[in-house]
Amino acid sequence: MKETAGGVCAPQDFAAGGVRCGIKASAHKRDLALIYSGRPAKAAAVFTTNRVKAASVLVTREHLASGGIRAVIANSGNANACTGEAGLAAARRMAAAAAEQISCSCQPVMPEQIAVASTGVIGVPLPVEKILAGMDGLMQSCAADPAGNDAALEAIMTTDTRKKTLAVEIEIRGKPVRIGGMVKGAGMIHPNMATLLGIFTTDAAIKGPVLEACLAGAVHRSFNRLSIDGDTSTNDMVILMANGAAENNPIREGTSEYDAFSAALETLCVRLTREMARDGEGASRLLTVTVDGADTENGAAALARSVVSSNLVKAAVSGADANWGRVLCALGYAGVSFNPETVSVRFSGADGEITVCENGGAVPFSEEAARRVLSGPEVEIRIGIAGGGTGSAAAWGCDLTADYVKINGDYRT
Amino acid sequence: MKETAGGVCAPQDFAAGGVRCGIKASAHKRDLALIYSGRPAKAAAVFTTNRVKAASVLVTREHLASGGIRAVIANSGNANACTGEAGLAAARRMAAAAAEQISCSCQPVMPEQIAVASTGVIGVPLPVEKILAGMDGLMQSCAADPAGNDAALEAIMTTDTRKKTLAVEIEIRGKPVRIGGMVKGAGMIHPNMATLLGIFTTDAAIKGPVLEACLAGAVHRSFNRLSIDGDTSTNDMVILMANGAAENNPIREGTSEYDAFSAALETLCVRLTREMARDGEGASRLLTVTVDGADTENGAAALARSVVSSNLVKAAVSGADANWGRVLCALGYAGVSFNPETVSVRFSGADGEITVCENGGAVPFSEEAARRVLSGPEVEIRIGIAGGGTGSAAAWGCDLTADYVKINGDYRT
Repeated sequence: MKETAGGVCAPQDFAAGGVRCGIKASAHKRDLALIYSGRPAKAAAVFTTNRVKAASVLVTREHLASGGIRAVIANSGNANACTGEAGLAAARRMAAAAAEQISCSCQPVMPEQIAVASTGVIGVPLPVEKILAGMDGLMQSCAADPAGNDAALEAIMTTDTRKKTLAVEIEIRGKPVRIGGMVKGAGMIHPNMATLLGIFTTDAAIKGPVLEACLAGAVHRSFNRLSIDGDTSTNDMVILMANGAAENNPIREGTSEYDAFSAALETLCVRLTREMARDGEGASRLLTVTVDGADTENGAAALARSVVSSNLVKAAVSGADANWGRVLCALGYAGVSFNPETVSVRFSGADGEITVCENGGAVPFSEEAARRVLSGPEVEIRIGIAGGGTGSAAAWGCDLTADYVKINGDYRT
Repeated sequence: MKETAGGVCAPQDFAAGGVRCGIKASAHKRDLALIYSGRPAKAAAVFTTNRVKAASVLVTREHLASGGIRAVIANSGNANACTGEAGLAAARRMAAAAAEQISCSCQPVMPEQIAVASTGVIGVPLPVEKILAGMDGLMQSCAADPAGNDAALEAIMTTDTRKKTLAVEIEIRGKPVRIGGMVKGAGMIHPNMATLLGIFTTDAAIKGPVLEACLAGAVHRSFNRLSIDGDTSTNDMVILMANGAAENNPIREGTSEYDAFSAALETLCVRLTREMARDGEGASRLLTVTVDGADTENGAAALARSVVSSNLVKAAVSGADANWGRVLCALGYAGVSFNPETVSVRFSGADGEITVCENGGAVPFSEEAARRVLSGPEVEIRIGIAGGGTGSAAAWGCDLTADYVKINGDYRT
């Protein structure tokens, strides 16, 4: 597996673009994106578990159920959530407009082959006329190159401070196969789901149900183990389109090709998950929590997620304070059975590793050394449960800073 | 029911006191408290659900199981949690020392009749010698008056910025009966349990199991509906001692006396819960969330707790931003079934009330008026589910401010 350029445009026969249509107040910010396949594609997606679902989520779920997806149209600046029937109609008009544009430049495409994604403020009617007026320019902006990828990505960003995109290439029986992705999300992020929006493309030939299994597995071990602030959004969506342009033998479950493709997709998702955590609202450090020795992988994941989600742990990391008692406390309310008296905790960073707790109790350590370890841009909390099990998992998040409060105290105005 | 002075010393034959024994670094802060009954007492308690439990919790639970409790000895500055066998031994020595002191001044008391409570940093060995050295002074500081109550309360405070204590008096068949309480807690507070420490006294004559039922009910509707930061502490404990000094006919379940006593206790707990929310770490506003029209009371409570715990809602309240979409979002991940399309949201404060959402969608409102309503020291979010049910509940919390991060970024040092 090797890294390659171009994000969602790295796989063959995908193009992307982004323009400003005027949803965002700023005159300089793109807010409308299109990512499409030049040929029919299979698709799989994972959606938010929030009971309050954005119109885009409802419409995309409906479209996915009716077959393959050819393109994703996405806007930022407005979540199109809590917008009722008008919101659903607006999402459908977005899909129809995208279908019409793609039909003009390629073969005919039905509105049901378009996925719709929205992100931004909840509860404000979507100004769909602005989107429709921007469609010509949007289609013209599309290109099958890194610039197209970046324009689309910029157009789905909200409080994100950096672009989070990546592509990898693997070989499937001698044929190069690529997977590319872009994600946006910096707040209202919590497991089930995790990322506000994630759009992935691949030129692999793969059946729909197999693609779904690959995506579900990768999301389970990446975006679903990310927490920025404990809020599961109304708009979360990860979608993966596979157009078969690589002309490999279709990937089937239970084969080494399946394993290679799954591993590549998971690596891509984990890498992007880490980038999202690093770019968490107000974050000054990327926080990784690993748990080993739990009864099961899911138990380890629940423990790791509880620690990475704890406001008190996050505030301590922000202050580079080796307050390991809060780690034990967060393990204790994870709802997972374990023996507190066999737990060990290590902090690690660029400056080395330091053990702060063994057998559930204090061990002597240098506060100064711990502060150095915790002061870097990446901090890891390594927890050993020593319960005799082999369950291991990682979870990702960031520290809690005063800037998080500033960003979210006045988001709308 | 009327309010009365004296806190835990308001009920007859209870005394309290507090001294500085040197656990806290500050030379001016009390850190050791004693609250005791002059005669044998029944007791009931509710403990943290965290799997990592402080030594004080384990020892007090053991003592409660062996019969009545005569006194509570409590320290601040050290949680005596994650301290292993040495921590358990230290907690037992605290109980034994308190029993000895009370035995000298009243009748003989066994160590098993003493409850132990600790609050402060987790994972640091408790300097129990300091506590033992302070016992004489502690006993001498005790008095059956408001000053004794206040000294004890000061000695259990950590990051609390104000004293949270209250007493009420009711009449049971012509006899005045009093209930008094003190609580501490400003961070690491989340439902199940909620308060770090709550110590309650009453001179009511009441059987142990009846007392337990009263306390469980009151805690369920007060402290268990409080969230400051989502972290359930290792040390949470609410304890209620009843010494019968009021000489009323013992209160039995299913009687009007039981109802009156339960209502008074619940009122006391709710009042103190609100004071804790108001004093949440870094808080600038007390936030109350009420939910009406849910299927059940517990469903309404889960919805209210989800909203009051949401970092994004809390940050919006901090910025007086009427971002009601975040309220809908937090309802949606509460794990309770409801129809998003019948939900209404009102913000209310000293400056009036404003409806911001009806039928799950936006209604026009003045941003300026909303900002005024949200700018006061007390804000209420009133949610109507309109699901046809009669389940109502309130939950309490506070806004999330930059000061919370400051307080918790460097708590230990």
